[in-house]
Amino acid sequence: MVKERILIIGGDAAGMSAAGQIRKRKPDADIVVYERSGFTSYSACGIPYYVAGLVEPETRLVVRTPEEFREKQNIEVHIRHEVTAIDPDGGKITVHALETGREFTDSFDKLLIATGASPVVPPVEGADAAGIFSLGTLETGIEARRFIDDHRPEHAVVVGGGYIGLEMAEAFACVRGMKVTLLDKSPQVMNTFDPDMAELIGNAIRSIGTELRLGEGLTGFTSRDGRVSSVLTENGEIPADMVIMGLGVRPNSSLAGEAGLKLSVRDSILADETMGTSHPAVWAAGDCASTTHLVSGKPFWVALGTVANKMGRVAGISMGGGSASLRGVLGTAMSKHCDYEVARTGLSEKEAAELGLAFSSSVIKTKTRAGYYPGAEPMHVKLVGEDGTGRLLGGQIVGGQGAAKRVDIIAAALAAGMTVNDLVDLDLGYAPPFSMAWDPVQIAGRELLKKTGGE
Amino acid sequence: MVKERILIIGGDAAGMSAAGQIRKRKPDADIVVYERSGFTSYSACGIPYYVAGLVEPETRLVVRTPEEFREKQNIEVHIRHEVTAIDPDGGKITVHALETGREFTDSFDKLLIATGASPVVPPVEGADAAGIFSLGTLETGIEARRFIDDHRPEHAVVVGGGYIGLEMAEAFACVRGMKVTLLDKSPQVMNTFDPDMAELIGNAIRSIGTELRLGEGLTGFTSRDGRVSSVLTENGEIPADMVIMGLGVRPNSSLAGEAGLKLSVRDSILADETMGTSHPAVWAAGDCASTTHLVSGKPFWVALGTVANKMGRVAGISMGGGSASLRGVLGTAMSKHCDYEVARTGLSEKEAAELGLAFSSSVIKTKTRAGYYPGAEPMHVKLVGEDGTGRLLGGQIVGGQGAAKRVDIIAAALAAGMTVNDLVDLDLGYAPPFSMAWDPVQIAGRELLKKTGGE
Repeated sequence: MVKERILIIGGDAAGMSAAGQIRKRKPDADIVVYERSGFTSYSACGIPYYVAGLVEPETRLVVRTPEEFREKQNIEVHIRHEVTAIDPDGGKITVHALETGREFTDSFDKLLIATGASPVVPPVEGADAAGIFSLGTLETGIEARRFIDDHRPEHAVVVGGGYIGLEMAEAFACVRGMKVTLLDKSPQVMNTFDPDMAELIGNAIRSIGTELRLGEGLTGFTSRDGRVSSVLTENGEIPADMVIMGLGVRPNSSLAGEAGLKLSVRDSILADETMGTSHPAVWAAGDCASTTHLVSGKPFWVALGTVANKMGRVAGISMGGGSASLRGVLGTAMSKHCDYEVARTGLSEKEAAELGLAFSSSVIKTKTRAGYYPGAEPMHVKLVGEDGTGRLLGGQIVGGQGAAKRVDIIAAALAAGMTVNDLVDLDLGYAPPFSMAWDPVQIAGRELLKKTGGE
Repeated sequence: MVKERILIIGGDAAGMSAAGQIRKRKPDADIVVYERSGFTSYSACGIPYYVAGLVEPETRLVVRTPEEFREKQNIEVHIRHEVTAIDPDGGKITVHALETGREFTDSFDKLLIATGASPVVPPVEGADAAGIFSLGTLETGIEARRFIDDHRPEHAVVVGGGYIGLEMAEAFACVRGMKVTLLDKSPQVMNTFDPDMAELIGNAIRSIGTELRLGEGLTGFTSRDGRVSSVLTENGEIPADMVIMGLGVRPNSSLAGEAGLKLSVRDSILADETMGTSHPAVWAAGDCASTTHLVSGKPFWVALGTVANKMGRVAGISMGGGSASLRGVLGTAMSKHCDYEVARTGLSEKEAAELGLAFSSSVIKTKTRAGYYPGAEPMHVKLVGEDGTGRLLGGQIVGGQGAAKRVDIIAAALAAGMTVNDLVDLDLGYAPPFSMAWDPVQIAGRELLKKTGGE
């Protein structure tokens, strides 16, 4: 009898989670992973902290090496191997061994595409100068770190005010003590937050000494001796001896698209609840794949480690013959900026408006702990709820220590389809060092009830 | 037209929450509150921290004074007035003005009983010595604090290893630097936790230098010049120059019982979802009233500030003519012991067994943050789930900073009736300073899935 052969393209969170789940269910199958970079299964979210020097060495970010996968789970991992073509009907892929230059084909009974996402790099002049980094992979993180160690830059410009941009800005400012300028052509940082909450985040960033230049687009770079020396913008020039590009990512779906697989929102690979694609022998998971937004019910794409891990687990269980599904996600995300924490989940007002929903929102300012307990810090909560039905739609949090992880209360409530009233009724944990008797999230809920209806 | 007259017995969390809700809906009604003590609306949970000197003055624990209630909400509050009898059918109560000694009756159209709970005080010899305190009210807290300031005790014995006992032990040890002995006749601290998790809590208590004497019952006290000098136990004598009694509380329901109102579990006052009692003109809320356990579906009584506030809100809305209900609670509670945090919600294994449920549990040890991120601390999570259905039944947490408030994830999941699988699917917040890509609660869920069925 011929052994079943399962191939996986991409050896990071989604791919390796899937590989492990498949192995549990298919002890005898051949499981082979092709990974373009030199690392497997690392924490991409940890890269900013490694670059800043808060975490080292870089191997601490690696959850499991190719050798460990081979020894412990009999999973064959080929790093520095890029897959260049997929033939779903023929059950074949074309592989390019980056170190030897050799090209070969491999055949599969089942295939998982877990190719991730890549940083958006705008086509501006001078972008090839040394000292300009897009932190898409651990390897680029290692290069950025080496640049810092070698050249000791004093003024960094971060282009793009999303999660990676803000985390790098924080790390440079708070850990490295560098002068940091954050540039974004949008009028606010963090576009997944509403402007009012983003304003609070902007204030937090400024309060740590970072210069914030919003509504100002990048136009190019100047360099000296091949190294970046300034960032050119619509409004002028910002001296810089290091630049981080944080303009977001897009799904690595061209391989799938060329193979005839259906694509979905933002050109992510269309995947169903079991992470199956439009071809019965092919699954997709991680930053390259689509899912569903649990609140809007619409196709959704988001590049987050939590989602990639969940997709990988479900894909692996499905491919291994088990039964699992991912109903969808909420775009729950959080981040830290020195003493400030931020988090969001579900729909923002902006997103609710785009969906044509009738909604109301509340924004409250309170404290992270009982007001009289030492260390209580300000905390802002915004909730969005649907008018009429009273259904909770989403939430955003900005505050001191202990504020952000409360987003999980909102996320759980959203997953359960709770109303704002249900949220207020929740029996949440309280003691003066942690909260008030009404959790801040519930205080925001009580405010919102006045608008969405209810007592 | 005669104005509607609404009386409230008890001016703390439940009573005053209700009063505020009634006022919103009935601008013209007479709302009169009788409160036995000298304070309204204070944080009982803050008393240990005030006694220890972490919070001062005591007025910081008071959310709103009688004068503020009168001026801002036209709510008449009579402090130091004890209600001694209720006549539900006659619509009358008998009031004893503690300062003048005067006794009078007052009449009501609607009555709320929010009489709270009182500390259990065992009938042992010597319990009337100075320096022995049951922290049932802010007044006893003030006395305890004055005793500390006057006599500078060096060795405190805390009798009872529940929340108040542990919080006082922590405050004495960590804030005051006192020598502390914690005595409990039970073989474990924190009886709402299973023995395995209570063992971790016990270790945490010992690690801060507190002596833990378990399985050892209190038999009496000795005193010198009227002040306590030692605690007598089944096994011997413990020198003590101050004693805190933390043997739990029982509902103040005798007034209601004598008035013929039906009582429920633990002699709490039987109340329905709107906090109505067995008499149509009488409501009950707070530590004196019963509710329902959301997981077991059975009558439940618990004395917690969160629950008292919710009950008061619902009672007030109902009495004001609005529509609100409290489906039930989960016994969610949390506490802090220097660097350790503990929390629980829903059913423990012990409780699930008492209900005759078929259940499994998982206990995992992981970290509060990404393992590579500075400050990651150990965190233990225990989950209990029902065999067959896969329904989540409860959870317990012991860990470092950021561990305990994750109990809210479990509490929200329980309120929604989620399965363990639903919990694992939740899209929770993640960033390396806060969590791993799978939240610790979900890691425990994945372990539990292996036992309750599911992938």
